[in-house]
Amino acid sequence: MTETLMQRRARLLGPNMSVFYEEPVHLVRGQGVKLWDADGREYLDCYNNVPHVGHCHPRVVEAICQQAGTLNTHTRYLHEGILDYVEALTATFDDPFDTALLCCTGSEANDVALRMAQALTGKTGVIATDHTYHGNTTAVHQLSQTNPPPGGYWDSVAFVPAPDSYRPLGGVAGMAHAQAFADAVAEQIAVLEARGCGFSTLILCPYFANEGFPDLPPGWLDPVQEVVRKAGGVIIADEVQPGFGRVGTHFWGHQKIGLRPDIVTMGKPMANGHPVAAVVAPRDTMQAFRSRFRYFNTFGGNPVSCAAAMATLQVVKDENLQQNARDVGAYAVEGLRELATRYECIGDVRGAGLFFGAEMVLDRETKEPATAFVKKLSNGMRQKGVLLNFLGIHYNVLKIRPPMPFSRANADQLIETLDAVLAETPLA
Amino acid sequence: MTETLMQRRARLLGPNMSVFYEEPVHLVRGQGVKLWDADGREYLDCYNNVPHVGHCHPRVVEAICQQAGTLNTHTRYLHEGILDYVEALTATFDDPFDTALLCCTGSEANDVALRMAQALTGKTGVIATDHTYHGNTTAVHQLSQTNPPPGGYWDSVAFVPAPDSYRPLGGVAGMAHAQAFADAVAEQIAVLEARGCGFSTLILCPYFANEGFPDLPPGWLDPVQEVVRKAGGVIIADEVQPGFGRVGTHFWGHQKIGLRPDIVTMGKPMANGHPVAAVVAPRDTMQAFRSRFRYFNTFGGNPVSCAAAMATLQVVKDENLQQNARDVGAYAVEGLRELATRYECIGDVRGAGLFFGAEMVLDRETKEPATAFVKKLSNGMRQKGVLLNFLGIHYNVLKIRPPMPFSRANADQLIETLDAVLAETPLA
Repeated sequence: MTETLMQRRARLLGPNMSVFYEEPVHLVRGQGVKLWDADGREYLDCYNNVPHVGHCHPRVVEAICQQAGTLNTHTRYLHEGILDYVEALTATFDDPFDTALLCCTGSEANDVALRMAQALTGKTGVIATDHTYHGNTTAVHQLSQTNPPPGGYWDSVAFVPAPDSYRPLGGVAGMAHAQAFADAVAEQIAVLEARGCGFSTLILCPYFANEGFPDLPPGWLDPVQEVVRKAGGVIIADEVQPGFGRVGTHFWGHQKIGLRPDIVTMGKPMANGHPVAAVVAPRDTMQAFRSRFRYFNTFGGNPVSCAAAMATLQVVKDENLQQNARDVGAYAVEGLRELATRYECIGDVRGAGLFFGAEMVLDRETKEPATAFVKKLSNGMRQKGVLLNFLGIHYNVLKIRPPMPFSRANADQLIETLDAVLAETPLA
Repeated sequence: MTETLMQRRARLLGPNMSVFYEEPVHLVRGQGVKLWDADGREYLDCYNNVPHVGHCHPRVVEAICQQAGTLNTHTRYLHEGILDYVEALTATFDDPFDTALLCCTGSEANDVALRMAQALTGKTGVIATDHTYHGNTTAVHQLSQTNPPPGGYWDSVAFVPAPDSYRPLGGVAGMAHAQAFADAVAEQIAVLEARGCGFSTLILCPYFANEGFPDLPPGWLDPVQEVVRKAGGVIIADEVQPGFGRVGTHFWGHQKIGLRPDIVTMGKPMANGHPVAAVVAPRDTMQAFRSRFRYFNTFGGNPVSCAAAMATLQVVKDENLQQNARDVGAYAVEGLRELATRYECIGDVRGAGLFFGAEMVLDRETKEPATAFVKKLSNGMRQKGVLLNFLGIHYNVLKIRPPMPFSRANADQLIETLDAVLAETPLA
């Protein structure tokens, strides 16, 4: 009897470990935007943002090898690697974001950011959208309504409906939609104040990635920003998904939408897969945190992590990957729009840079979500060698978020394959 | 004007970032048990457990380079690296510890373990000692009395006095001391039950590392184990410090003291500095967790992390580092005992394997802690090229915890240097 990989996985890792696709992919090699499975089959990676500058980018690999062979310690000794990196990282921000705290995962970064907001405001109340994901620590897991924490929610947590440009709250569009979002936040601030914990922070992904990346114009977050400021709260921008040039027009998602956050968190793509994450903040905010919380992270900001992060940042710049994201993203979205002229199931095409997709519906009039269909599409694409996924409020939005060196030729392959899969997949 | 490294650090990382020694060490290179600073000065590393098999061990570096250049993804695709590693890791345990969850930091591991205990018991009350450290997430930070969380403690957290073999609770020694510890836990279980959260888990380092590694015989935790079981709770053994052969006689700290935990966590030394941590548990415990909590960690168990962890584990075995820890640790402790015959300030010498030290007192009769003195010793050692530190309930215990390839010659250098520093450092 041969044990399959899936059986061995269940035996060693336990049951219910999530896996992609009906037929999971057993990967053995990656390079740039390509992946290969154990049978030598090639895949076009249209999904993974962690290998930001491409799978196994030689400059990042070289930086890791070189530093791992030289020294790897922690920040209780002095080392220039973390200082050089934080200098380069904060230079990508507008004033006054001039300091950073390095940790290992986006979850850790958001967990710290919540306490930074607490240090600034003296309050603990947190507001998030009802379709977000900010990570997996006990505290951060509290911010998930899609995956409710066993034992229930803390009194200090409140939710507002996620923005949705395709089906806007109350049927209103544009800035009326923005005002409705701000009003919902104001309402929850009152709830938190009535509960006695007060209002500390609104945490959001400025691209609302998990919410299905609604199409929101610059300035859309101005009303909510005013509401938060007036209530004495702060805004945490979770840039784990849109950051590092992915949205094309700007280096950070909050810059694109014109949000001025108080605290910014980042993770996944930061070091091309090496476990690195960070919280970036103005110095007085960092000081408020560090004077109230004694925080030390053994692996955070170690020389190897910083070398990996620095190489990743340099490659983004040297290979003009932000510009590439803008160009190729626009080109691919054009391709999706062309498909939408031929496939009725494509209800909406949206996105920015190399984070885009299409919302699938059973009917363009009623906008009924084609949730089961998009899952079939995703599996169909996988069978044809193209890896992507789906997300959104109704889990009916194709999620396309490839490594940043994704080319026009890659986009052509994506669109042609999608055309073929759409043609052969029955809608119902 | 030249900005110093310390000034640059404060500018980019914010104030209050902890640093070792009055004159911080600016490290640039490491190899085995040696470190070098920017001036080319060599140091003997008697402190760092993270580079478990030695700084920049070539087999670990090679494993990282090889895998980083081949593939680095996440566990939603299949990969054999994590399975091979978990198989090798769980083989170091006694039955029934047969599954593992991989994450990135010891803090994440303990944060998960608390929820695993919650999944098993349906309760949330946690008991820890009053001088422990289990990590830095919001939830885990609640377990620190030495660094109280701003905003106060949750109702679900309770503390018991840390064991102390040199100044035992109530003046009783041996198993009477053990019973006093168990009684204190029983008392706090009643407190948690009265508060309504119920009793979920007792979390402890089975070596009580931060408490000053008291000298506790096998079986010492039997009474408390019985109390916990009777109350329907579980025990989390935090092996972040004693694990992976460090205590010499056993691979895990809980095996040494004869504790049968329900959940085991580990971190720091696991992959020689690569950010890897884990929770190991029996399959039904893992199942209870995974069926109640949907948990995914992007970087956790990635192919590079697993390659680093596997190489580290293999080197521990192939180079007989557990046996080395036992031999050299015993030899070094003999050296400390010889110093104690000549220096009155050494009140107690204790430890196991390559985690040992000496408790410094102003007076052997009163046992008054020589806290300021031990700090001076640590700085004096640093000035003479030997890196160590101090900890314990009164912060007066020399903490010696070198990389595992520490040799008898290294121990000689340590003891000779300590002799010289003791001779020249005034006690008061």
